Amino acid sequence: MDFTKADTVLDLANIRDSLVRMEDTIVFNLIERAQFCRSEFVYKAGNSDIPGFKGSYLDWFLQESEKVHAKLRRYAAPDEQAFFPDDLPEAILPPIDYAPILAPYSKEVSVNDEIKKIYTDDIVPLVCAGTGDQPENYGSVMVCDIETLQALSRRIHFGKFVAESKFLSETERFTELIKNKDIAGIEAAITNSKVEETILARLGEKALAYGTDPTLRWSQRTQGKVDSEVVKRIYKEWVIPLTKKVEVDYLLRRLE
Amino acid sequence: MDFTKADTVLDLANIRDSLVRMEDTIVFNLIERAQFCRSEFVYKAGNSDIPGFKGSYLDWFLQESEKVHAKLRRYAAPDEQAFFPDDLPEAILPPIDYAPILAPYSKEVSVNDEIKKIYTDDIVPLVCAGTGDQPENYGSVMVCDIETLQALSRRIHFGKFVAESKFLSETERFTELIKNKDIAGIEAAITNSKVEETILARLGEKALAYGTDPTLRWSQRTQGKVDSEVVKRIYKEWVIPLTKKVEVDYLLRRLE
Repeated sequence: MDFTKADTVLDLANIRDSLVRMEDTIVFNLIERAQFCRSEFVYKAGNSDIPGFKGSYLDWFLQESEKVHAKLRRYAAPDEQAFFPDDLPEAILPPIDYAPILAPYSKEVSVNDEIKKIYTDDIVPLVCAGTGDQPENYGSVMVCDIETLQALSRRIHFGKFVAESKFLSETERFTELIKNKDIAGIEAAITNSKVEETILARLGEKALAYGTDPTLRWSQRTQGKVDSEVVKRIYKEWVIPLTKKVEVDYLLRRLE
Repeated sequence: MDFTKADTVLDLANIRDSLVRMEDTIVFNLIERAQFCRSEFVYKAGNSDIPGFKGSYLDWFLQESEKVHAKLRRYAAPDEQAFFPDDLPEAILPPIDYAPILAPYSKEVSVNDEIKKIYTDDIVPLVCAGTGDQPENYGSVMVCDIETLQALSRRIHFGKFVAESKFLSETERFTELIKNKDIAGIEAAITNSKVEETILARLGEKALAYGTDPTLRWSQRTQGKVDSEVVKRIYKEWVIPLTKKVEVDYLLRRLE
């Protein structure tokens, strides 16, 4: 997706292709995380022993990674949303001339706090290899966590492009709904149950295909690395609803 | 793999399982990198405009990432080898009591410089989406590059465990070869052509299975995200030979 060209970015077919491709990344990341036990220790704020820092070990490493990625210009891109957007360092790479695709307030629309909470409380227990703590894997666990959180965040905040595209194609209808602060009406207007069913079915197949060694597919060891029902549930219960929340939050301010 | 227990780590069946699992990670990483153009700009030392730094942009970001990961205790683990091992910061996580699995000099056995050169000169051109530069994707490109380099490095340096395991199981034979500095003899002793054939065949199947949307498998759009022949070639030409180099380098010093 070339974010220097507004018309290609807001073409719903291109947005859809990007979302389909992101499913692969998310499934890959969940497969990687599934190698390790839950290791709840790294998610609890009280356990980190870092002077002047109150969050969890994961918070600390996520923030440190975001600082490096900010220098890589990551959060200047319209499709990236930092978990710790305050006090990020300047980019070292030369700036990009992005087209003004989204509304100026778009970076203020963020559900990253919810994503982090859902990921650590609900998603990790569903995908991890066991309930215990493996201190020797804390580092690997957090590397996987950071990549998965970033992939989920990018996917969910991509709802802004969906919302902008829908607003432009049905401006009158959405203007009316937004003026009336009709949240239920906006939700209904952005929901396509048939598309959601297709997404879930495809995710189940991807989890199975990417999580199974193809040379063992017909053997007795056919168990996949992630449960395909779990992957579908992650999308159904959290990814799709949070994407809609992003779309609604974005649209509610669209007349500013 | 639990590196606090030497006997499980040096069991060749466990080592083999780990190597097979790493293939998945490497294939996933190559698929991610294949989304982007070559973007050679980030690999050339002269292009980075960072005061006091002479390497490429990739070098800089790899080094910055390693500093964060060192705080995560990454390079204390016997199966991790830093690309820029000098001046890494102290870990923030509490230390792990690793079993003395490998010889004390093992961290000095490194082919990371070769891996980086081969990756940027040979592997990227084979997997990338096109030959050009995409400045808006430099950040994403380098994030993929760093993950792929780390996965390749871990896989290749895992040869140390293979070497140690083989040394322990055939100590007399290897002692003789090492004393005679018989490099060809060591290479012959660690080579199993049948196993190599199996690895390559499995890699081709994995590249196909993980790189193809399973819901499109029977459609006209069956093209995978990475060429399975390319993935096999990457292993045949570089991963397997470099792993052997690590094994030989490690064994040559084993009587120290």
